[in-house]
Amino acid sequence: MRDADGAMLFGPTPGEELRARRLRIQSLLQQASLDGLLVLQPVDMFYWAGTVQIGALFIPSAGEAELLVQKNIDRARKESALGAIRHIRSLSEMAEHLPASRASRIAVEMEVLPAAELSRLKKYFPSWEFLDGEKLIRQARQIKSPFEIDVMREAGRRHAEVFARIPEWIADSTTELELSARIESGMRLRGHQGLIRLRRWNLELYYGPVASGPTAAYPSYFDGPVGTVGLSPAVPQGASLRKLAPGEPLLIDLVFGYGGYHVDKSRTFALGGLAREFQEAFEYCLELDRAIVSRLRPGRKCSEIYLEVMGLVENGPYREFFMGYGSNKVGFLGHGVGLELDEWPVLAGRFERVLEPGMTLAVEPKIFFPERGGVGIENTYLVTEDGAERLTDFPDDLVIV
Amino acid sequence: MRDADGAMLFGPTPGEELRARRLRIQSLLQQASLDGLLVLQPVDMFYWAGTVQIGALFIPSAGEAELLVQKNIDRARKESALGAIRHIRSLSEMAEHLPASRASRIAVEMEVLPAAELSRLKKYFPSWEFLDGEKLIRQARQIKSPFEIDVMREAGRRHAEVFARIPEWIADSTTELELSARIESGMRLRGHQGLIRLRRWNLELYYGPVASGPTAAYPSYFDGPVGTVGLSPAVPQGASLRKLAPGEPLLIDLVFGYGGYHVDKSRTFALGGLAREFQEAFEYCLELDRAIVSRLRPGRKCSEIYLEVMGLVENGPYREFFMGYGSNKVGFLGHGVGLELDEWPVLAGRFERVLEPGMTLAVEPKIFFPERGGVGIENTYLVTEDGAERLTDFPDDLVIV
Repeated sequence: MRDADGAMLFGPTPGEELRARRLRIQSLLQQASLDGLLVLQPVDMFYWAGTVQIGALFIPSAGEAELLVQKNIDRARKESALGAIRHIRSLSEMAEHLPASRASRIAVEMEVLPAAELSRLKKYFPSWEFLDGEKLIRQARQIKSPFEIDVMREAGRRHAEVFARIPEWIADSTTELELSARIESGMRLRGHQGLIRLRRWNLELYYGPVASGPTAAYPSYFDGPVGTVGLSPAVPQGASLRKLAPGEPLLIDLVFGYGGYHVDKSRTFALGGLAREFQEAFEYCLELDRAIVSRLRPGRKCSEIYLEVMGLVENGPYREFFMGYGSNKVGFLGHGVGLELDEWPVLAGRFERVLEPGMTLAVEPKIFFPERGGVGIENTYLVTEDGAERLTDFPDDLVIV
Repeated sequence: MRDADGAMLFGPTPGEELRARRLRIQSLLQQASLDGLLVLQPVDMFYWAGTVQIGALFIPSAGEAELLVQKNIDRARKESALGAIRHIRSLSEMAEHLPASRASRIAVEMEVLPAAELSRLKKYFPSWEFLDGEKLIRQARQIKSPFEIDVMREAGRRHAEVFARIPEWIADSTTELELSARIESGMRLRGHQGLIRLRRWNLELYYGPVASGPTAAYPSYFDGPVGTVGLSPAVPQGASLRKLAPGEPLLIDLVFGYGGYHVDKSRTFALGGLAREFQEAFEYCLELDRAIVSRLRPGRKCSEIYLEVMGLVENGPYREFFMGYGSNKVGFLGHGVGLELDEWPVLAGRFERVLEPGMTLAVEPKIFFPERGGVGIENTYLVTEDGAERLTDFPDDLVIV
C-alpha cells in the first residue's frame, strides 16, 4: 500500500490522544457499572479508534480497546494507533474476538444503531445485556481536547477565508444556486470534507442554507431556525433557483467540515441596501448574541442561560419572530458542535447540564419575518475558564454588497 | 406562505403516482398478513407521501394513508397530495391519530430505525407487534414507474453534460481536489441535489471517487470497488490533494442526484496517454460490461448473471484484480439505484431474485492494479421487456486528455 500521507491534510490521530479519550469513556463506564462500550457508528469509531471502518470497536471498562475491521485491514492499521486490530469477514465473527461468553452489561449507540443491527448483536452475544450508551458517548465527546480544538480553530480560519470572498461571489451570481455552488467550491478548495454529519438519524444537511429574502422564512422540516426551499421536495433544503434581489436580506448559514470537525457560522448580507426594519432586527440579534455569549461560562446551567435570554426576548419587540414564527419556531439558542453538528451542550429550556471548559457550541440568534426574510448571526465558541473564545473569527457586521 | 414553485426544479409528486405506490405496498402488506407500514425514514416518506418530514406516515393494509408532521405542517400540505395530514407536537402524540388500540402487526424500517426509536414506538403502541418491513419496502420501491424513470432519464442527461466537460476541467486542474471541486460545482449548477443517499446506516458518500493513479486502488472501507484516499482519516473518501500525473488512469465514478433520484456512472480518463496494460484492462471491462448488460432481461436471476459473468472472469487474465484485489474485492457487479444508491436488485452471488421490467441498476465492471491504478466503466440501466435501456448515455471510450 503506497503511502498516501502527502495526499491528505491529516495524519493519524496520535496514540496519546486516543488513550486519553479511552480513559475518559472508561471512567464514565465504570461510574455507570457498565462492562464496556461496543461502537459501530463511523463517527464514534473515528473518535475512539482514529479510523472509519465497517466493523466494531470494543472498549472494555478497563484495558485496551479492540478494533474489528471488515473488508480491508491495511488502512485501519495505517490510520489507527490502537494496538489490537483484527480482521473479521462479517459482524457475526465479532464474538470470536471479544469476551462474549462472560455475562456483561454493554453500552451501545441506541439512537443510531438500527433495530435490526441490535437484534443481530443480541444473537451474536447471547450473554450480554445491551444498554443505552448515548448519554455517556455525548458526555465523553462534548469536552474537546487541545488537539481537537486546534483542528476546529483551523476550520474556523478556513471558514473565515470563505466568508471574505462571499461579497464578490454574490456580485457574480444570479440565483441562490449559483451563489451556493461558488461557495461550496470555495469551501472544498480550502479543505472542506464535503460531508456534514448529524447524529440524529433522520436529519441531513448539505453545507447549510443560502437563503435569499422569503426563502429564509420558508417552512422547513429541519430542526434549525433558517428556512430553505431547495431544488425539490425530495431534498427540501439548501439553495433554490430563486433570483437574488436588491434590498432583501441574504442569510447565509454554513458549516465548515474539516478533519472530521465542524464549525458553524452565519452572516447576513444584502444586495444594494436593506430596509431599516431588517437592519434593526439584525442589530437586535447582535445585542442578544452578546447577552448569550457573556453567559457562556463554566458552571452556568444551559437551561438557565436559555430562559434568561428568552426572558429578554419576551420583553422585546421581536417575540413573535425570534428563532422562527408559528410552528417554524425552534426551541434552542445554540447547539454543541464537534464531529457531529448536533452535539452537547444545547442552549435549550430542558437541557439542565452546566457548561464546562472545552465545550464547543454554535450560538445563533436569528429573526424571521414571514414571506419576507430572515436576519441573524452565528458563531462557534469554545468555553474556557475565562468565558467564551470565538473559533469563527470574522466581523459580525451586516454586509451590504 | 409565498409560493416557492418557481424556485424549485420539481413540483409535488402527482396524487395518482402516490396512489399507485400505496396500492403496491398494500398488496405486499396483505400478502404478508400485515396490518400496516409505519414509515419514519425521510426517503421512504418522500416515496409514499411526496414530502420529507420529521413525523410518521402510516399506511394501513387497505385505505388511505395518514401523514403526521412535526414542526411545520404548511409545507407538508403544499408538497404532499395525500388527503390526511395532521400536525403532532411530538412522536408521542402519534398514537392519538392512528388505530393504536387495535392489536396489529405493523411493518417498520428495521434496518434504518434506531433501536431507541423502536423502543419508543413500542411504548406508544403497546398493542402493536412491530415486524421487519425492509424486504417489502425494497420490493415495492425496486420497480420504477414511468414517472420515476422520466426523472432518472433527465438525471442521466444532466450527468452526461457534466461528463462532457470533464476533459477541460482535467486540463485546468492540478490535484484531485481541484478537479473534484470543479466537477461538483458543475453538477450543482445542473441541478444536482448535493446529498447522496444510501440506505445502509453506516455508509456515506459525497458525489463519488475522483481517483488518480494509485488512489483508485487504495484501500477503502466503503462497500464499492473504487478506492479513495480523501482529505483525512475522518472522512476517508473522495478527492485527495494528490497531483494528477500524465500516463496514469483517472477513474471518475460519480453519482448524479436529481429530484431525489440517483444515477451512477464511471468513466476512465488519462492525461497524455495510457500504458498498453491499462488500455487492455479497460477493453476487457468493456467486454465484460457487454456480457453483463446482454443478460439484463426480465426473468433472469441476479445470482445466475453474477456467477456466469464471474465464470468468464475466472477464466480470463484479470481474475486477481477484478472488482478489487485481496480483501479490497467486493462481491457484486451491479447495484440497484433509485431514491437510494444501494437499492434492489443486486448482481451478487446470493441475490436470488429475478429481474423485472422497471428495475434500474448500475453495472460497474472495474479492474484495479495495486499501487498503480484502476480502470473501468459504469452505467445505469433500466430493465425493459426488450432488455436493458441505458439511462446514462455517453460514449464508453477511454478519454485521453
